[in-house]
Amino acid sequence: MTRTPSDSRPDPSGSTPPGEETPRPGHSHRHPRAARHRHTRRLSRPRLPRAKRAPPGLPAGIEYHELTATSPDTPTRILCTDYSPERIETQEVGDVAAFLAIHRPSWTQVRWIHVEGLQDQSALRTLAEKYKLHPLAIEDILDRGQRPKLEDYPGEDDLPGRLFVMAHGIQLIENQLVSEPTGFFLGRTTLLSFQHSTCPAIGEIRKRLYSPRSRVRQNDASFLLYVLIDAMVDRYFPILDASSERLESAEDEVLTRPDGLSLHAMHEIKRDLVMIRRSAWPMRELVAQLQRDHHECLSEIAQTYFRDVYDHCVQIIDLIETYREIASAVTETYVSIVSNRTNDIMKVLTVIGTIFIPLTFLAGVYGMNLEMPETHWAPAYPLFWVACLVIAGIMLWRFKRGGWL
Amino acid sequence: MTRTPSDSRPDPSGSTPPGEETPRPGHSHRHPRAARHRHTRRLSRPRLPRAKRAPPGLPAGIEYHELTATSPDTPTRILCTDYSPERIETQEVGDVAAFLAIHRPSWTQVRWIHVEGLQDQSALRTLAEKYKLHPLAIEDILDRGQRPKLEDYPGEDDLPGRLFVMAHGIQLIENQLVSEPTGFFLGRTTLLSFQHSTCPAIGEIRKRLYSPRSRVRQNDASFLLYVLIDAMVDRYFPILDASSERLESAEDEVLTRPDGLSLHAMHEIKRDLVMIRRSAWPMRELVAQLQRDHHECLSEIAQTYFRDVYDHCVQIIDLIETYREIASAVTETYVSIVSNRTNDIMKVLTVIGTIFIPLTFLAGVYGMNLEMPETHWAPAYPLFWVACLVIAGIMLWRFKRGGWL
Amino acid sequence: MTRTPSDSRPDPSGSTPPGEETPRPGHSHRHPRAARHRHTRRLSRPRLPRAKRAPPGLPAGIEYHELTATSPDTPTRILCTDYSPERIETQEVGDVAAFLAIHRPSWTQVRWIHVEGLQDQSALRTLAEKYKLHPLAIEDILDRGQRPKLEDYPGEDDLPGRLFVMAHGIQLIENQLVSEPTGFFLGRTTLLSFQHSTCPAIGEIRKRLYSPRSRVRQNDASFLLYVLIDAMVDRYFPILDASSERLESAEDEVLTRPDGLSLHAMHEIKRDLVMIRRSAWPMRELVAQLQRDHHECLSEIAQTYFRDVYDHCVQIIDLIETYREIASAVTETYVSIVSNRTNDIMKVLTVIGTIFIPLTFLAGVYGMNLEMPETHWAPAYPLFWVACLVIAGIMLWRFKRGGWL
Amino acid sequence: MTRTPSDSRPDPSGSTPPGEETPRPGHSHRHPRAARHRHTRRLSRPRLPRAKRAPPGLPAGIEYHELTATSPDTPTRILCTDYSPERIETQEVGDVAAFLAIHRPSWTQVRWIHVEGLQDQSALRTLAEKYKLHPLAIEDILDRGQRPKLEDYPGEDDLPGRLFVMAHGIQLIENQLVSEPTGFFLGRTTLLSFQHSTCPAIGEIRKRLYSPRSRVRQNDASFLLYVLIDAMVDRYFPILDASSERLESAEDEVLTRPDGLSLHAMHEIKRDLVMIRRSAWPMRELVAQLQRDHHECLSEIAQTYFRDVYDHCVQIIDLIETYREIASAVTETYVSIVSNRTNDIMKVLTVIGTIFIPLTFLAGVYGMNLEMPETHWAPAYPLFWVACLVIAGIMLWRFKRGGWL
Amino acid sequence: MTRTPSDSRPDPSGSTPPGEETPRPGHSHRHPRAARHRHTRRLSRPRLPRAKRAPPGLPAGIEYHELTATSPDTPTRILCTDYSPERIETQEVGDVAAFLAIHRPSWTQVRWIHVEGLQDQSALRTLAEKYKLHPLAIEDILDRGQRPKLEDYPGEDDLPGRLFVMAHGIQLIENQLVSEPTGFFLGRTTLLSFQHSTCPAIGEIRKRLYSPRSRVRQNDASFLLYVLIDAMVDRYFPILDASSERLESAEDEVLTRPDGLSLHAMHEIKRDLVMIRRSAWPMRELVAQLQRDHHECLSEIAQTYFRDVYDHCVQIIDLIETYREIASAVTETYVSIVSNRTNDIMKVLTVIGTIFIPLTFLAGVYGMNLEMPETHWAPAYPLFWVACLVIAGIMLWRFKRGGWL
Repeated sequence: MTRTPSDSRPDPSGSTPPGEETPRPGHSHRHPRAARHRHTRRLSRPRLPRAKRAPPGLPAGIEYHELTATSPDTPTRILCTDYSPERIETQEVGDVAAFLAIHRPSWTQVRWIHVEGLQDQSALRTLAEKYKLHPLAIEDILDRGQRPKLEDYPGEDDLPGRLFVMAHGIQLIENQLVSEPTGFFLGRTTLLSFQHSTCPAIGEIRKRLYSPRSRVRQNDASFLLYVLIDAMVDRYFPILDASSERLESAEDEVLTRPDGLSLHAMHEIKRDLVMIRRSAWPMRELVAQLQRDHHECLSEIAQTYFRDVYDHCVQIIDLIETYREIASAVTETYVSIVSNRTNDIMKVLTVIGTIFIPLTFLAGVYGMNLEMPETHWAPAYPLFWVACLVIAGIMLWRFKRGGWL
Repeated sequence: MTRTPSDSRPDPSGSTPPGEETPRPGHSHRHPRAARHRHTRRLSRPRLPRAKRAPPGLPAGIEYHELTATSPDTPTRILCTDYSPERIETQEVGDVAAFLAIHRPSWTQVRWIHVEGLQDQSALRTLAEKYKLHPLAIEDILDRGQRPKLEDYPGEDDLPGRLFVMAHGIQLIENQLVSEPTGFFLGRTTLLSFQHSTCPAIGEIRKRLYSPRSRVRQNDASFLLYVLIDAMVDRYFPILDASSERLESAEDEVLTRPDGLSLHAMHEIKRDLVMIRRSAWPMRELVAQLQRDHHECLSEIAQTYFRDVYDHCVQIIDLIETYREIASAVTETYVSIVSNRTNDIMKVLTVIGTIFIPLTFLAGVYGMNLEMPETHWAPAYPLFWVACLVIAGIMLWRFKRGGWL
Repeated sequence: MTRTPSDSRPDPSGSTPPGEETPRPGHSHRHPRAARHRHTRRLSRPRLPRAKRAPPGLPAGIEYHELTATSPDTPTRILCTDYSPERIETQEVGDVAAFLAIHRPSWTQVRWIHVEGLQDQSALRTLAEKYKLHPLAIEDILDRGQRPKLEDYPGEDDLPGRLFVMAHGIQLIENQLVSEPTGFFLGRTTLLSFQHSTCPAIGEIRKRLYSPRSRVRQNDASFLLYVLIDAMVDRYFPILDASSERLESAEDEVLTRPDGLSLHAMHEIKRDLVMIRRSAWPMRELVAQLQRDHHECLSEIAQTYFRDVYDHCVQIIDLIETYREIASAVTETYVSIVSNRTNDIMKVLTVIGTIFIPLTFLAGVYGMNLEMPETHWAPAYPLFWVACLVIAGIMLWRFKRGGWL
Repeated sequence: MTRTPSDSRPDPSGSTPPGEETPRPGHSHRHPRAARHRHTRRLSRPRLPRAKRAPPGLPAGIEYHELTATSPDTPTRILCTDYSPERIETQEVGDVAAFLAIHRPSWTQVRWIHVEGLQDQSALRTLAEKYKLHPLAIEDILDRGQRPKLEDYPGEDDLPGRLFVMAHGIQLIENQLVSEPTGFFLGRTTLLSFQHSTCPAIGEIRKRLYSPRSRVRQNDASFLLYVLIDAMVDRYFPILDASSERLESAEDEVLTRPDGLSLHAMHEIKRDLVMIRRSAWPMRELVAQLQRDHHECLSEIAQTYFRDVYDHCVQIIDLIETYREIASAVTETYVSIVSNRTNDIMKVLTVIGTIFIPLTFLAGVYGMNLEMPETHWAPAYPLFWVACLVIAGIMLWRFKRGGWL
Repeated sequence: MTRTPSDSRPDPSGSTPPGEETPRPGHSHRHPRAARHRHTRRLSRPRLPRAKRAPPGLPAGIEYHELTATSPDTPTRILCTDYSPERIETQEVGDVAAFLAIHRPSWTQVRWIHVEGLQDQSALRTLAEKYKLHPLAIEDILDRGQRPKLEDYPGEDDLPGRLFVMAHGIQLIENQLVSEPTGFFLGRTTLLSFQHSTCPAIGEIRKRLYSPRSRVRQNDASFLLYVLIDAMVDRYFPILDASSERLESAEDEVLTRPDGLSLHAMHEIKRDLVMIRRSAWPMRELVAQLQRDHHECLSEIAQTYFRDVYDHCVQIIDLIETYREIASAVTETYVSIVSNRTNDIMKVLTVIGTIFIPLTFLAGVYGMNLEMPETHWAPAYPLFWVACLVIAGIMLWRFKRGGWL
């Protein structure tokens, strides 16, 4: 028995995953313990991030022979693209074993094998055996909750070193932040990439590869890695944009009509910023390593371009921190405004109350059915009004002097 | 007289320790000063962490001759497992001295001696003398409040160096966080482990050892250490999971029906996160050292796998910090919502009061038994109503204009 | 198709950009997707900073052949200044290609080419080809949201190394912070500078160049760079000055008449400080690198003077942090004062209410039309008054004792 | 004239110092300027820490000839202990000069001279001259406000190097934190220690020295230093224990009966934690240096044991930080609970007020002495009650719907 | 035209500068642009710190020929002190040029030239030319807003290196923090010091120099620098002392009679701590550099003594941080106490209101002039009282049960 990565279970609905690491209910026969249903419906808020749920004590790493899950519903799709500056060819691989048995064409300078959908693990196993992927790396690929990171598996004997890169792209799906982890194995002329679901950005980059003048065609596999990671980092910008728009409109509301502010919306913004930040910081670390550390598989030109991605990451972090500070200033201002308004409201009530409560008492006194000498005294009534006006006047004057009005 | 580690006293109840470092009442004849009873009952909250209670000024370290406590109630259980890739044998050791006098079988590649229950110290003394354990390390093992740490006792003369590792696993026992410190002495072919109470994870790992294909059988003693520490680190995940569920439901309550929020529950969540964090940070430091520093007892492959444990530790810290930020955002939102609601409530009272208090005064005036000309004037009554409506109308219009309604 | 820098679109109004990275509506035929109109009017608050809006997945860097935008409305203006200690000449360059074909005069020690307005990119292309500017650097120049940074493009073959510097000056335009990014390429005898709009400081520095005794004339191109960056850093001081004045008057208001405090103004101050800080920190980093790192294009004397600019940057950061702390202390004091005043107001209402509500009840009782024995008892009325005074006296005495009055 | 260390004045009362660095009133003829009386009595709170009060501009360091204060009231007591593994002797030194003139016995391996009470400085002067103590170190010893620190005075000519160590122990005297600074001069075979007042721990350690089997007897002077500093560090634990108990009971009160919480007590806890932390951090730094840095006077075995003290220091800091976080969570929860209760109270008043104020107005209307047609209409009275019930019902229904009840 | 240091303008009033960097109104003919008058009077609060106000774009550094300001009102006073262990002489320098033309006497080991008052710059110019002071250093000396810093101007050709030190002393003038920047140029046998105004500490140190036994006479110029900086650092202690006293009395007030707390005073304390900290941190950095870095002009013994000054700086920072934490705890406690009191006040009003409002309604009902059957029923009146007592009793019982009383 092995630790269960949360996505080795078939997903009957086949829909896009609604939350980062939400285990989806399934009917996996191997892991009944993980099939925890949640009946409480939370409409719009994404779940809090969770870690993998394998019970403690299971061995780490996934050995090749453990990659046995098969899922006819969501088959794994493998696309292999070979290219050189002059030529490019893409094929969809059906039988992985047969495909890997054939030598790659001699004109190929970079081979990019992209695997989409990791429910059916037989293809993964064949690839892992062929390219001698490390069991810990395989576990990381299958784990949706894995954080972005860089792992250097140094070469042994006949095989050159590999760089294992785990990157995160984020998307907004139905107003929820969904993070799409992607695993890369970078060799000197080969790039393997693994994703849980289909991502349109991959297709667009493949299209760009077909343009013979594009820089990526002129360069090596690490440049292709750069292009893919650049695309993932670029994904943060529209999401930050959406956050900044929500934040701006919240700020407008606080300053113009604080009653209209949806505290829910404000909470969502803060929460989203926490989540984006949680994802962006390790991405920044990852790209910093990629642009700084020397590795046999990373070309110098790719590292120059990674510096550019690093700048974007710094910009993302900077925007997140700026938004967080603004959000915190908005909250502070909101609390000040609300307590100020409570103060104003109390002041009105107190002024009214302080003026009329004594007067009402006075009126109540003369409404008593006791024998009062005043009742028969004609000027009593006008004098009563005079007294009321005098009392109210004194009160108002004191409030004025005290700065309450 | 010597410093008293809190667990060198016999525990008559034999129950699982209810709190991290709570000294349990006992009738130790050697240490009457430590027998402090607490009669105040706190039902569900775990105690705050405390440090060891030995009075200041006693010598540090526990010399071998001081290990004299014997406790027939909770005897020490010692299990010795010898294994090599081909063969494995486990025996429960009754007479430690006799056992240690015999040479280990020649086929053994790793010997793992696991000691459970440290109240009866005679076996501990025999082990300490045989393996020349450092007095300070023995004190650390016996101290329940010891933080995770790594201590390198370099080899002398005939004995190879030892690595002393103090690790923490945490458990939820009756909704209380209990931290189980475990001490390890790692030699080149030997691993000693010491625990205060029986822990099921140890048994499971021993079972895994019996599977001849398991990685741990193929590797050395430091790999066994890795497997044990990995199991302890994995223990944090279900506990974080429980925290995140409580946090999510608190968040739901704040946003949907703030009155229903149990501020107690919120406080417990924050408190638990402080406690888990307090335990997780030094674990991270410990594993960072294990994966980074070179030591003659640590094999390269074990360090590769410790990198994986390190990733888990980073993930744990990251989740804790994320939960703490969310918890703080929830608290902030709660305070905003409550002050907003107070504001709304005040507004209702003020609107009602401001409209009716002057009208009530007016009614009171005409209820007076003074001689008022209006009393005999027929249209006075309808005019009174008109005046009331006009005053109320003006008030309502002003409230409307002021944005209070 | 290429990533669109936000300023490659013609600006029909030709006015100074009202916000840092606000994309201005335009009729660019190449980038219809960027022409997002915002109809919601925000009168005085500047927009939150945004990042570039190019859709994810486009290639980074701008190749020379992509520099094709032409804008007859806001033509690019190029001024070339050649100088040596003895002589100086400035010419406005019309035909860049023709100009660059001619060798620079032999007496020239420094050539400074300043480009203003980047909507018309044909000149930019010619310059980029002549000086072999890096595509990533060109993209940075065209991107208004670029953060200050230093990039070292090492020399190749026949060309000496280049230092690419991106600096920010800030200005207050109609009470809004506008940041003006400027790109520099520093060679050994050449300085290229690129700005989006006309900046008066450039003209003043050119005038200073004409004074033969000025230090800048005696020194090399890196000293000219120093003078330009010094001018940009000096721009922060009047803006901080304005902030400190607004902060001081807010502080005065909080301490003398808290009702008068504009919470809006306070929020604006905090927001502006966040924005200035966001711009100043990377400037400090940039200048720290310039004064510290060795580079073939930076002369020692320029680095001595950059130390002075660095001191100014440290002073700016120090002032910002001081203002932020004061602003936070002001907010804290404001909240304390407001809650104190609410307390005072409540106290008045409570004292009045607590005294008169029971008395009004008593008056109400004797106003009842039930048969009450007291109604026919002569001393009832004076006794009623006595009771009222006694009750009020007791209440007042208790309030006095409780420290409420 | 020289700078006055605060304790060079005779203390007529001879009592234990009531506050950390409180200058006690005295009648020093040399330093009349320091004799500042404080008549304001603060019963239980310890004073805030202060720095030395010598007027600015005096020379630093105390030269030997300036050590002239004599105080017959609190004489200096000097105890000299010589020991080797076999033999130990302690003598109280009366005439320091005569004592120092005699060579130490040949069997002595460690000589420990302990000086208690620093008001009478003549003995100090003799010691300082004999052991060539640095003027700055003497000033530090006499200054009660000195922070823990390590100073290495390298050896010159015939004299080996000295290590000057300033350590802090803390005590609870009448519920007030009192910090007792102790100065040590460590040579290769000599340890000098200086304390302002008698400390029982010193006596206990001297007793331990008399046990021939104790480790300290087997080791050198630096091990004795370790034992003394270990005793000082151990002093923090009971004080932290007391803090944790007060914090736990405050937490209990907040969660069970928030009205009962003594905000004073909570403030004292926070204040004490600030004070303990202020003292513990530099102790940690000090011990870190002692266990890490090489020095000719520090033996390897002592450094191994200092690692143990360092662990204790880390544990102390960790507990302090944990308590501070819990204290902050308790405060947050308290504020939330109080504002929640205010909300509840307001709700009750508002519900009652909103229901009865309009009804009271209605009753007031029909109590008017105007000519009202209703007065002669029989069903008016029951209809009035019906109207009241209907109005109250509608109000209650709305409150119910609004979630106020 | 040159950048204007704020003090190069003649000060007609000649009074002590009232604020740190407040530009004083003057009638400088050279810099009319800086003469900004502020008519708004702020009585006791010091101004916020500002930076220099020179308009952006002026060249940095002040060339010798620009030192032309002359101010007959506040003439520059120059005192030259020559000393060796045996001999000392002080002369007031009238004609600087003539003085500098004469060689220094051969017996002199240290020459200290102290310049007071920098409005008249002709002497400064002569000195700058003689000692080849760097233009940037001259600008720093003239700039009152300059932060403490250390600048090493390495020697050239015939001139040994110079160390330029900018230090800050602070003073309380009329309860306002005033910072007095002082510039030093340290050579091997010469110390130049520059101050804007007369400072008594300088005179005292000169007096100390006349004592032949004083350490400073035995040592070199760097020791004199140490003595001067030590005097400036010592200035912080009485000011911190004053802060701690104000903080203690604020704490007393919060805990004993929170109404009496002057929130203004509390705000001033926080503000002052921000200001002192702002000044103390760079002083600490400066002294850390002086005690750590090697420089040809700094003797070893001076560096040993600078370590002592560094300890004082650390103590100052430590006290500031402790006071800030206490101040923040006091504020927190104040807010808790105030919201607790508001809660108590509301409770009283609510209890009174909730009991009497329904009763008043009841009394109002029976005061109606409608035809009520009860009016003619004799027991109605006593029953009314019974009902009132029952209702009040139920209410009180519920409040009791709810813990409100």
